[in-house]
Amino acid sequence: MQRRAMILILGQIMAKTGPFEQLQAELASEMAAVNTLIRTRMVSEHAPRIPEVTAHLVEAGGKRLRPLLTLAAAKICGYQGTDDVKLAATVEFIHTATLLHDDVVDESNQRRGRPTANLLWDNKSSVLVGDYLFSRSFQLMVETGSLRVLDILANASAVIAEGEVLQLSVAQNLATSEATYFQVIRGKTAALFAAATEVGAVIANAPESHVDALRDYGDALGISFQIVDDLLDYGGASASLGKNTGDDFRERKLTLPVILAVAKADAEERDFWVRTIEKGNQNDGDLSHAMAILQKHDCLEMTKSKALAWAGKAKSALAPLPESPLKTTLAALADFVVSRIV
Amino acid sequence: MQRRAMILILGQIMAKTGPFEQLQAELASEMAAVNTLIRTRMVSEHAPRIPEVTAHLVEAGGKRLRPLLTLAAAKICGYQGTDDVKLAATVEFIHTATLLHDDVVDESNQRRGRPTANLLWDNKSSVLVGDYLFSRSFQLMVETGSLRVLDILANASAVIAEGEVLQLSVAQNLATSEATYFQVIRGKTAALFAAATEVGAVIANAPESHVDALRDYGDALGISFQIVDDLLDYGGASASLGKNTGDDFRERKLTLPVILAVAKADAEERDFWVRTIEKGNQNDGDLSHAMAILQKHDCLEMTKSKALAWAGKAKSALAPLPESPLKTTLAALADFVVSRIV
Repeated sequence: MQRRAMILILGQIMAKTGPFEQLQAELASEMAAVNTLIRTRMVSEHAPRIPEVTAHLVEAGGKRLRPLLTLAAAKICGYQGTDDVKLAATVEFIHTATLLHDDVVDESNQRRGRPTANLLWDNKSSVLVGDYLFSRSFQLMVETGSLRVLDILANASAVIAEGEVLQLSVAQNLATSEATYFQVIRGKTAALFAAATEVGAVIANAPESHVDALRDYGDALGISFQIVDDLLDYGGASASLGKNTGDDFRERKLTLPVILAVAKADAEERDFWVRTIEKGNQNDGDLSHAMAILQKHDCLEMTKSKALAWAGKAKSALAPLPESPLKTTLAALADFVVSRIV
Repeated sequence: MQRRAMILILGQIMAKTGPFEQLQAELASEMAAVNTLIRTRMVSEHAPRIPEVTAHLVEAGGKRLRPLLTLAAAKICGYQGTDDVKLAATVEFIHTATLLHDDVVDESNQRRGRPTANLLWDNKSSVLVGDYLFSRSFQLMVETGSLRVLDILANASAVIAEGEVLQLSVAQNLATSEATYFQVIRGKTAALFAAATEVGAVIANAPESHVDALRDYGDALGISFQIVDDLLDYGGASASLGKNTGDDFRERKLTLPVILAVAKADAEERDFWVRTIEKGNQNDGDLSHAMAILQKHDCLEMTKSKALAWAGKAKSALAPLPESPLKTTLAALADFVVSRIV
């Protein structure tokens, strides 16, 4: 009876705090080791500018979702060593390096509510410190001595870079297909999620079915994560205008909602998309009009369905793994990622 | 007699063509394989912008000195496999990636007499295609399956990135010491030369003394190469003004000639360096005046001596290796690198 009550209370706490906080709690000691390692390795004896720039970004309170995924995958597979900590730091360094380069490419001024490094210092520092973090991640993964891990992360790096270049070359291009969109988000988001979970399983010497399960989970989670992000940029399925909406429209990015709308556009709507996205000639009221078109064609609802389907795929992918509290948390995390839009 | 005559003729040809062309001739078939591999691997199925940008740079007639060094080191150590070709392509990809990022950082408009990628496309493409080439190099080296090679190249990557950031943070800083200058050029140039020769020896399973010899040769060659470059920017030891001189002065870079001059400056000269380099307030005639100061204090001759000393170190480093035509060519190459300033 007492035990039941405790489980009930724990359940309430978990419901309150959500699966992400739960994941943090379940991996608190490993994550503390990751944070220590990140701080140790981002220091450069010879170039003091490096920790200045990286500290700005690394300490800025990012969610550390990717390293948590690596730690979770390793733990689910019963890993006992310390290489999971190295790989979690590796993954966070790769992520941080891509953020630094993204901010240069996007000419961003803000990230996580703070000025970006390229604004505080300059583009040069963002490019070179990104390179430095990437090389540090490379050193960390070599230390694990696992050629298979190196192979996975080398391939992920190539997919990430390809995705970023692809995104650049399809920007403002109304002919962008849904297939191309998925290639872009697989590169810019899902590839690192998938590698993060896969290397956790590989380092634990998990059976191939478990490695596949965790990689597929990371891949699908990453895809749903990015679709949700792109949908929220248009205010979610309810198209509720907020101060954080409309960035992609203003930056003329072809994301899923607009790709779906372009496919259904009549002549007048097509002219609207050509003017605002392709030619970048935007006026007051265009964002509201864009959202009206998106709602008229059900594009936001369709986008939401796709995000939910990918979250479903993430959960199904976990099936081959034995039941455990961490597995339950990962499944809940997939629901949580899309809960922002339901 | 006939044979003697032939050797004489060959000797004349070699003397005429120089050690670099000789190196190319001795490694022609391996280098053809490297060029094929580079062309195959720079293609991206998903992002057509990538081969456009890389072809511009990779086909632009760079000297391919670094891959030649890898091939030479492997051949000297009796290597029989094909991983030397992969590593030579790896090294060229890393070099090309750093060039793309350098051009963004330096805001360059010209490289090898042609417009740079950042001018033809944009900074974004240069940053992202650089990342792509780096990830491709990473895939290539993983294919060799040698953790030691990966370790060497991971460490070299970190030293390169550190050197670049260090260069950025000491730019325009008159307090830059000679020691800092050597740290910068070790990062920006010598680290990749040293890794290029070292991995060639490692892949050939050469004895440690030969690995050390070839790494030290690459390191010293790279250092002398960069000192020569920095000296030529002030017209060489004779300070002869040409159309390619004065870039570093105009870009306010602290290179060895100026570092030596600042150390010997009287109050008036110090004011001159503060105005032109630190504050960037340059007028007509300032470059000529800078060169007059450099000559007055013998800074160009001193720089030349240091370049010659490092070329000497490169040659001495080869001592433990058995005699061979390739070894002779590498020694001649060290002389050739500094021959541009004598």
